[in-house]
Amino acid sequence: MDKKPLIVLNFKTYAESMGEKAVIMAKYCEEVSKDSGVEIIACPQIPDIFRVAGSVKIPVFAQHIDAAGSGSYTGHITADCVKSAGAAGTLINHSERRLLLADIDSALLSAKKTGLATIVCTNNIAVTSAAAALSPDYVAIEPPELIGSGIPVSKANPDIVRGSVSAVKKFNPHVKVLCGAGISTGDDVAAALELGAVGVLLASGVIKAKDPKAALFDLVKNI
Amino acid sequence: MDKKPLIVLNFKTYAESMGEKAVIMAKYCEEVSKDSGVEIIACPQIPDIFRVAGSVKIPVFAQHIDAAGSGSYTGHITADCVKSAGAAGTLINHSERRLLLADIDSALLSAKKTGLATIVCTNNIAVTSAAAALSPDYVAIEPPELIGSGIPVSKANPDIVRGSVSAVKKFNPHVKVLCGAGISTGDDVAAALELGAVGVLLASGVIKAKDPKAALFDLVKNI
Amino acid sequence: MDKKPLIVLNFKTYAESMGEKAVIMAKYCEEVSKDSGVEIIACPQIPDIFRVAGSVKIPVFAQHIDAAGSGSYTGHITADCVKSAGAAGTLINHSERRLLLADIDSALLSAKKTGLATIVCTNNIAVTSAAAALSPDYVAIEPPELIGSGIPVSKANPDIVRGSVSAVKKFNPHVKVLCGAGISTGDDVAAALELGAVGVLLASGVIKAKDPKAALFDLVKNI
Amino acid sequence: MDKKPLIVLNFKTYAESMGEKAVIMAKYCEEVSKDSGVEIIACPQIPDIFRVAGSVKIPVFAQHIDAAGSGSYTGHITADCVKSAGAAGTLINHSERRLLLADIDSALLSAKKTGLATIVCTNNIAVTSAAAALSPDYVAIEPPELIGSGIPVSKANPDIVRGSVSAVKKFNPHVKVLCGAGISTGDDVAAALELGAVGVLLASGVIKAKDPKAALFDLVKNI
Repeated sequence: MDKKPLIVLNFKTYAESMGEKAVIMAKYCEEVSKDSGVEIIACPQIPDIFRVAGSVKIPVFAQHIDAAGSGSYTGHITADCVKSAGAAGTLINHSERRLLLADIDSALLSAKKTGLATIVCTNNIAVTSAAAALSPDYVAIEPPELIGSGIPVSKANPDIVRGSVSAVKKFNPHVKVLCGAGISTGDDVAAALELGAVGVLLASGVIKAKDPKAALFDLVKNI
Repeated sequence: MDKKPLIVLNFKTYAESMGEKAVIMAKYCEEVSKDSGVEIIACPQIPDIFRVAGSVKIPVFAQHIDAAGSGSYTGHITADCVKSAGAAGTLINHSERRLLLADIDSALLSAKKTGLATIVCTNNIAVTSAAAALSPDYVAIEPPELIGSGIPVSKANPDIVRGSVSAVKKFNPHVKVLCGAGISTGDDVAAALELGAVGVLLASGVIKAKDPKAALFDLVKNI
Repeated sequence: MDKKPLIVLNFKTYAESMGEKAVIMAKYCEEVSKDSGVEIIACPQIPDIFRVAGSVKIPVFAQHIDAAGSGSYTGHITADCVKSAGAAGTLINHSERRLLLADIDSALLSAKKTGLATIVCTNNIAVTSAAAALSPDYVAIEPPELIGSGIPVSKANPDIVRGSVSAVKKFNPHVKVLCGAGISTGDDVAAALELGAVGVLLASGVIKAKDPKAALFDLVKNI
Repeated sequence: MDKKPLIVLNFKTYAESMGEKAVIMAKYCEEVSKDSGVEIIACPQIPDIFRVAGSVKIPVFAQHIDAAGSGSYTGHITADCVKSAGAAGTLINHSERRLLLADIDSALLSAKKTGLATIVCTNNIAVTSAAAALSPDYVAIEPPELIGSGIPVSKANPDIVRGSVSAVKKFNPHVKVLCGAGISTGDDVAAALELGAVGVLLASGVIKAKDPKAALFDLVKNI
C-alpha cells in the first residue's frame, strides 16, 4: 500500500466515549495516529467537541451539523459554532441522523464557507452518486443494515463499495470514498482500500471493544 | 417550436381545487389539453386522486409519495396505493414537502417498480444535479423564494434554469427539466422552453386566477 | 356488558387491504357491524378513502391528517379534503406517524372545525395525559413494542390501560379511551373493556388473519 | 414584588453570542445577576456549553436536547452529555426546534433522570396544558408570531399568558410559567409577573441590543 488510509472514529452517543471519556478516547486515537503515521479523526458528541479539541492535536469532527446558520435559530448545530469550538470537519447525513436533500446542500455550503471538511454518509450507490454531485470532500458508504453488525461491508457487500467508487469517479472524481458499517479490524481496513476506498468510518468496533486502544492499533497493523 | 411542452398543474391544498372543484379543475385541464394538443397533468390532493382520475382522461399525478411501501405503516402515501387510485405519476420532494435524501431514493424506486412517472422538485443547480443522479423522469427546478410570487423564474433567474439544464445533461442526460415558480402566462412557458426546459410546473397562476380555464388557454397560446 | 364497544380497524398500508381489497375489507366490517350492532370504523389508506366511503355505510376514518389546512401546501393531508372524500374522522399521531406536539394541536383544531371525529394515539400514561389536555374525542393507548405482536396490551401491561383511563378522568373526563396494540380476539376486547376502555384499535389481528371476516366476528362474539 | 423573577436568556445561533462572545455574554448575565440578586440563566449554543459553563457561576442551560440517550445514535444531543458539559438544565421544544409529542416526553424523562431542570416551550394555551401534563419544571409560553417582534406578549396578548397560568394551575400546579416572545424591557418583565408568570424567556431583546449589558440591567430595574 503506497498511501496511508484515513480512519474516522464516530464516538456516537456511547457512554464509553462521552465527557472525560471522550478525551481519553481521543488521546488513544492521537497515540495510535502518531505511532503509525495514519490520520485518525475523532468525532465526539457535539457538546464534547470543545474539550476534546482542546486536548488533542488530531483533527476533531462534529457528528452532525444542521442547515441553519447564524441567526434566529434555537438548538441548531451550526458550522460556525462547531468550527469555533475546535472542529476541523463534520459528518453530514449519518444514517442515524438523516437530512433533507436540500438541507444536505445547505449544510455543505455552510461547512465549506467556514472551512470545515465534510463527509456525507450514504446508504447505497444511487445515494452516493447524488451525494457526490453536491461536492463534499468525502462520501462514506454505509449500508444501514450492517452498522454495528461486526460484519464488514467489504465482505458482506463488496459490490456496494466498488459501485460507490465507480459512481463517484463518474459523477465527481474530486470526491473520495470512505467505507463504513461493520468495520472492526485491520483486515477490514485493508479490504476497504483494495475496493477503492481511501479509508474507513467506524464506531462500535473500537468504542465498544474491551480494549479500544488495542482495537485502534489492530486497525493500522497492515499499514 | 417543434415539440410541445408539458404542463404540470399542482392543485396544492387550495380550496379552489379540492373535492368536486378538483374534478372541475381537471376537466378544464382536459379541455385545454384536447384543444391544444399540449399534455397537461393534474396533481390534485391525494384524497382526490381517485375521483379525479375516474373523471378525466388526462394523466393525474400525486403531489407526494412517502418512502414507505406496503406493510406496517400508518398514514403513509405509498406508490402502490396512489397508482391503484388512478395516478400515473407523482411529484416527489416538492419544496413544501421536502424529503430526506435516502427517502427520495426509496420513493423513486417504489414509483418505478409500480410504474409511476416521477418528477423530483429541486431548489438550485447543485440539488438538481443530485436529484438527476437518482434518475427520475423529470426534475422541476423551483427556487422557493419565487413560488407563488408571480415573478417567473425564467425572468428572475434564467441562469438557474440554464444551469439546471446543463447539470442534468452532464449528470444524467435521460432526465428532463421542468421549470417552476412564478409561472403564469404563455410567455413564461415560452421563456422556459427557450432556456432548455421541456415544460413547466405551476399552481397559483392557474388555480388562483379569476378564470382558471382562460389562464390555462393563455399558457398554451404560443404553441 | 351494558354498553357496546367501539372497534377501530386500521388498514395500515397492507397490500391485503388496499384499493379494491380495501372496499372488500370495509364491507366485511359493515356486515359484522350490522349483524352484531357493534360500531366498527374502517381506516383505509388515504387515497382509498373516497372509494371506500362511497361503498359502505359504516364510518370511514383517515389514518392521518397534517397540521396544514387549505392553502399553499403540497402533498399535505388536510382535514377538509379527507372530510370531502367521505371521512367521518381521523387517527392522529399514530406511533408509525408521530407528529410534533404543536401540530397535533393544529390538526385537532382543523378536524374539529371541519366536523371530523378524532382519535389521538399515545404511547404511555404521561403522553395520554398530554393528549387528553388537547381534547380529542378519543385517545388510543398503544405501547409501540406491542403493536403487531399478537400479545394484547390488556394482558402484557394492564396497568398502562388502567393508568390511561385514570389520567384521562383526571385531565379531561370528556375524552374516551381506546386500547390498542396486540388486540386480535373477542377476549382481548372484553379485557380492554374491563380495564375501562370503551373500545379497541387494531390492525394485523384482522387484516393479516387467514379469514378477516371470521376474525371480525370473533372480536364481537362476547357482545 | 415579593419574589424575584427568573430571567432565561436564549443565545440562539446569533453570531453576537457565539464562541468567545458567548462567554462574554454569559459574564454580563453573571454580573447583572450578582448585582441584582435576580437569577439569570444563559442558554448558549450547544457546542459552547462547555466553555461557557467553565467560565461563569450562573446556571447554563442547553437550547435543546433530543429524545435519544446513550447508545448507537449519531449527532443527537443527549441529556447526559450536556449535563457532563456543565449544563444545569435545558430548553425543550422551542418553537424553532419543535419535537414530536412522544419525544418531548422521552427528553423530559432523560433530563429528570440526569438531574437537568427543564423548560418546555409552548405556543398557545392548549399546548401549555399538554406540556404541563408531562411535568416539566417550567413551561414558557411564546406565541411564535411575536418572537423577535419587540412587541411583548404581555401587551399583545395578555390573555394567552393568563390562560396559560390558569391551565397550568388546573393541570399541574407544580409547573411554573415563564413568558416569552417580544420581551425586551424591565416593564415587560413586570407585566409578565403581574399576569402570573414567574419569569421571562428572551433572546434578541438583549443579544441584538446595542449594549446587551445595559439591556440586562434594564430588565431587572424594577426588582
